Amino acid sequence: MNAALPHPLSPEAAPRPVPPAMLAALRQRFGARLSTAVAVREQHGRGESFYAALPPEAVVYCESTEEVAAAVALAGAHAVPVIPFGVGSSLEGHLLAVQGGLSLDLGRMNRVVQVHAEDLTATVQAGVTREQLNREIRDLGLFFPIDPGADASLGGMAATRASGTNAVRYGTMRENVLGLEVVTAGGEVVRTGTRARKSSAGYDLTRLFVGSEGTLGVMTEITLKLYPLPEAVSAATCHFPSIAAAVQTTIAIIQMGVPIARCELLDAHAIRAVNRHSKLSLREAPMLLMEFHGSPAGVREQAQTVQAIAREQGGEDFDWASTPEARSRLWTARHQAYFAALQTRPGCRCQATDTCVPISRLAQSIDESIAEAEASGIPYWIVGHVGDGNFHLSYLFDPDDAAEVAAVERLNLQMVQRALRLEGTCSGEHGIGLHKMGYLQEEAGPGAIEMMRGIKRALDPLNIMNPGKIFAL
Amino acid sequence: MNAALPHPLSPEAAPRPVPPAMLAALRQRFGARLSTAVAVREQHGRGESFYAALPPEAVVYCESTEEVAAAVALAGAHAVPVIPFGVGSSLEGHLLAVQGGLSLDLGRMNRVVQVHAEDLTATVQAGVTREQLNREIRDLGLFFPIDPGADASLGGMAATRASGTNAVRYGTMRENVLGLEVVTAGGEVVRTGTRARKSSAGYDLTRLFVGSEGTLGVMTEITLKLYPLPEAVSAATCHFPSIAAAVQTTIAIIQMGVPIARCELLDAHAIRAVNRHSKLSLREAPMLLMEFHGSPAGVREQAQTVQAIAREQGGEDFDWASTPEARSRLWTARHQAYFAALQTRPGCRCQATDTCVPISRLAQSIDESIAEAEASGIPYWIVGHVGDGNFHLSYLFDPDDAAEVAAVERLNLQMVQRALRLEGTCSGEHGIGLHKMGYLQEEAGPGAIEMMRGIKRALDPLNIMNPGKIFAL
Repeated sequence: MNAALPHPLSPEAAPRPVPPAMLAALRQRFGARLSTAVAVREQHGRGESFYAALPPEAVVYCESTEEVAAAVALAGAHAVPVIPFGVGSSLEGHLLAVQGGLSLDLGRMNRVVQVHAEDLTATVQAGVTREQLNREIRDLGLFFPIDPGADASLGGMAATRASGTNAVRYGTMRENVLGLEVVTAGGEVVRTGTRARKSSAGYDLTRLFVGSEGTLGVMTEITLKLYPLPEAVSAATCHFPSIAAAVQTTIAIIQMGVPIARCELLDAHAIRAVNRHSKLSLREAPMLLMEFHGSPAGVREQAQTVQAIAREQGGEDFDWASTPEARSRLWTARHQAYFAALQTRPGCRCQATDTCVPISRLAQSIDESIAEAEASGIPYWIVGHVGDGNFHLSYLFDPDDAAEVAAVERLNLQMVQRALRLEGTCSGEHGIGLHKMGYLQEEAGPGAIEMMRGIKRALDPLNIMNPGKIFAL
Repeated sequence: MNAALPHPLSPEAAPRPVPPAMLAALRQRFGARLSTAVAVREQHGRGESFYAALPPEAVVYCESTEEVAAAVALAGAHAVPVIPFGVGSSLEGHLLAVQGGLSLDLGRMNRVVQVHAEDLTATVQAGVTREQLNREIRDLGLFFPIDPGADASLGGMAATRASGTNAVRYGTMRENVLGLEVVTAGGEVVRTGTRARKSSAGYDLTRLFVGSEGTLGVMTEITLKLYPLPEAVSAATCHFPSIAAAVQTTIAIIQMGVPIARCELLDAHAIRAVNRHSKLSLREAPMLLMEFHGSPAGVREQAQTVQAIAREQGGEDFDWASTPEARSRLWTARHQAYFAALQTRPGCRCQATDTCVPISRLAQSIDESIAEAEASGIPYWIVGHVGDGNFHLSYLFDPDDAAEVAAVERLNLQMVQRALRLEGTCSGEHGIGLHKMGYLQEEAGPGAIEMMRGIKRALDPLNIMNPGKIFAL
């Protein structure tokens, strides 16, 4: 907790207190599943962002869609904010109760409602995490590929339009949510989409809710696309003489249409942290961590093509992770890079940038960002879903050093402005939350923001759904 | 033209005449590119649906985004409807001027604005057709896969969320539009999305406009994903003892995750029409028309897998279309099935159903639909993008026979209701337009329709953008 990180509060940000009558009604309905304990509220008012917590006034643990609807209806009757909560892994301040109100914890709504193996679909409650889903469907020979690193809830992943390491082949939550059950701001239960793979039936409400960060309603059930577990999976690391060489390799892979499943960049700083944290001995030089999915022959063919491309850029021979255990160790290490990096500078916070650019602009985008980071003297590390043009240059800064805080904000803004000049976006996968509201204004422009505002007002006229996020009303 | 086909007009359907002052202003701005000629108006008020034309009062041929914005602003000032027009290939009455107004013909906005081969993206004006785009990018080794049959404009395809034969592998317009330039109902020019492959930056306005059928604004530029031309392409036909056997083969292909590029079903009626129209000699028995994309080895492997699956269902050996010419002849014949079928019953009209269901329900969906069609005695034919669970059972009916017209409507409704019971959708790719407004009500339910209405009112408060389509306001 510190005061050095201001919350970019929007003009309408005056807190809207939970009136005693509402609290009493919640207590009557939810009993011990209503909590106003400080620790619980703090936990629900922060996420993994670098902001100090802004706790909600109360937390309700919902166990069914009906309970969510009842809580939202009550909040609506008192014009009190409602903030849906999954596992709390969001990164941009999505969960901060900037206007007070109620946190709806959906973690107990963790039932896989239906799996239709023959249709490659599953319907889950919003609190199911991606690892839980994958455990429950593995014996059916199926998997759900979207993997943002954290074992996030699928509701949270839908809310931020998450993607991660597998998106280069399988798409993001945008492409993999078929339908939703949502509780509207009016407390109504509405279904969007069907289990059909495609549809031209009316406005795409599903895709409107995906990425809406809890500002339009609460997603309670999510129908997802599943995939057959690939017959063959191979992972390999490949080291390069420079980040530029690794990036050029990635660009060529994508341009040739190789259906690579994962293509992750780690810089030397990230590898150093990962080695220390996960007791690995990877060479501390720019590296691509790749995975290939397909038939045994198909995987071999992909790997040969990629190896040839890598060699042209001075890449070393592949180091294969041939067993599932070796593969899992590598990916676990990759996913723990965030926590590993935090440990390299005690007391620091991490600000992860999240720009995404067209693949041909990636080299310029990374090069210039590194030059600025080096010039700043602030420790940083890079990992990237480079196959998508998305990378995270993360600063490890001292939250009590006002100059450093300001420098990091300035550096992030420069990166965003560069990404926009390169026809990219300020956020590849983390969302806008509180932190990127200003960036979104630059990216979308006043006309598009006005459309978003219009939609928000239409679906949430009292502005109770996670107010003060994405844009100011 | 006939009176037997009522237009399901919505309650707010009173025509809103173009006032003389507006017409004068349009004439001043557009000169000879404003037309009120009967033939021109008729052509712009119909599309390929079975409805009699409902012509707009005037047609304006726009040549730039600025002109579209000017025309829409003028229409807004007089609260007059605006209906965007591409090539007129829509099937559900999208273009009928049910409330009068102005047709904006975007056919002359046919410039490929930018191709970024290295990023696999292109930005086109809305009037560019898919074949034009593919001609212009072929020499770069690229293609745009979405192929609804007709050489539709990309604006029209985005507006109906079109898909077609390649969607089973490459997705639909939903997955392949990265960003848009739109003219809002207020006459403002707004951009949505960027050229980045993914983004979590705010509400997904792009996907909201894709499939909105001209009711939220006019799409003037579209940024699309492109794909490298596959190294190897093979097409094959395979005949089956029954439609059920062909469908079971399809289901197994999808469930095994074979990345087949096209998987089209034709029934004996469709083949008969196609043989006659395109001078082919295909066996008049249920057939799958398939295409495989990939490396030479990959294509061989896919084909072997599929051939093994087909044999288990009694499928004959593949008949390969090995040259590009032979392939092109087959696909041209497939795309002309609609016109071929129309010729088999002189004076008839065609009502194409468009349900899409989860793949495991496809056999039941087709079987029961065929039984009903046979019982009706009305000629029909079937083609289907069966890899997606989407098929078109099309009735060839006499528009002057009221009983037949009513029977076809009843049969279509039964199909839709069955698709909804099977967790599917009333429209896989044609959209709602006028014709399916009732079906959408059944599918989406009042809560979702109310959300759509709210969005429409927010973005088009005067209800000038293609009013009276998708849902009644």
